[in-house]
Amino acid sequence: MNPALVLIDLQLAIDDPSWGLRNNSGAEANVGLLLSHWRRSGWLIVHIRHDSREPNSKYRPGQPLHAFKPETAPLAGETVLGKTTCSAFFSTDLAERVAGRLLVIAGVITNNSVEATVRSAGDLGFAVNLAHDGCFTFGKRDWFGVERTADEVHGMTLSNLDGEYCRVLSTSEILCAAETYFPSSPSLP
Amino acid sequence: MNPALVLIDLQLAIDDPSWGLRNNSGAEANVGLLLSHWRRSGWLIVHIRHDSREPNSKYRPGQPLHAFKPETAPLAGETVLGKTTCSAFFSTDLAERVAGRLLVIAGVITNNSVEATVRSAGDLGFAVNLAHDGCFTFGKRDWFGVERTADEVHGMTLSNLDGEYCRVLSTSEILCAAETYFPSSPSLP
Repeated sequence: MNPALVLIDLQLAIDDPSWGLRNNSGAEANVGLLLSHWRRSGWLIVHIRHDSREPNSKYRPGQPLHAFKPETAPLAGETVLGKTTCSAFFSTDLAERVAGRLLVIAGVITNNSVEATVRSAGDLGFAVNLAHDGCFTFGKRDWFGVERTADEVHGMTLSNLDGEYCRVLSTSEILCAAETYFPSSPSLP
Repeated sequence: MNPALVLIDLQLAIDDPSWGLRNNSGAEANVGLLLSHWRRSGWLIVHIRHDSREPNSKYRPGQPLHAFKPETAPLAGETVLGKTTCSAFFSTDLAERVAGRLLVIAGVITNNSVEATVRSAGDLGFAVNLAHDGCFTFGKRDWFGVERTADEVHGMTLSNLDGEYCRVLSTSEILCAAETYFPSSPSLP
């Protein structure tokens, strides 16, 4: 079976300035490359959308920033699943929809919904490629009060996940492997 | 319902020198305090044991280091669940056994099976208190190659979990809250 591209929480609310300083300014462009390849190949694309139940969340359905970011938004016919949990596996039927497939995961934020979804996927037995340059996060304090940059937060999550729950790869590595192991349909240009 | 104490992977294999430098040398003593309180109170204790399926793992059943560490080992009648995943919720019936209870979680390692279990618990809707001083981990490189101490790894995990999937508390804070909200049986000394 062809691999599934699973994109996590790429909604307008992630651009809200209250998040602070992000990393990987090219993440949306990299997700765009993945989307282009998956669309050309006719492979399964699943857009996960966070549907918060918290009254004041910008991710609550009906709020203006709940919508998908336009540069990586779903096209007609692509699967959209709303989730109310951090891991996309706990509040959707994602596991059934992608059963038997290699999962390529990207989105936001690296150390919360992306990490939770990758950990679940690994524990559920899925083979997962995580596109490190198709994810981003924000600086935050660690639990001892030390300020960590977005790259430091990102780097610690990737280290916890790589080899244990997934393979951490670049978008280029994923596209190269996809071409090799899952050749595109011969009807494509 | 009384809270459940869920201890993760406290097996001899965690003392193997190949892990490197750990933090929280008092973690086992703190878990001992939690165990004593739970035992005196007659509350539910669940010991999670990692039963690796990897041929060369020290956590594989039958290997000498697969056994529980003696200082925090289960007593007769306490629940023992073997898991084959990182999160204890994916390969056991833990969710049913602790349904409706506040969970107090401790064990090892902070950034792998403890973190995976806490993330699952939060997403499943459990209220979780994580005993930060009843957990420990080891130094490792982040994904960019920067060496991080055990405390740095520990501190980043706790920051990712606190307020999102659980409350991070000390053993003292947990015992104080337990006495307040779940008074021990009057038949106790």
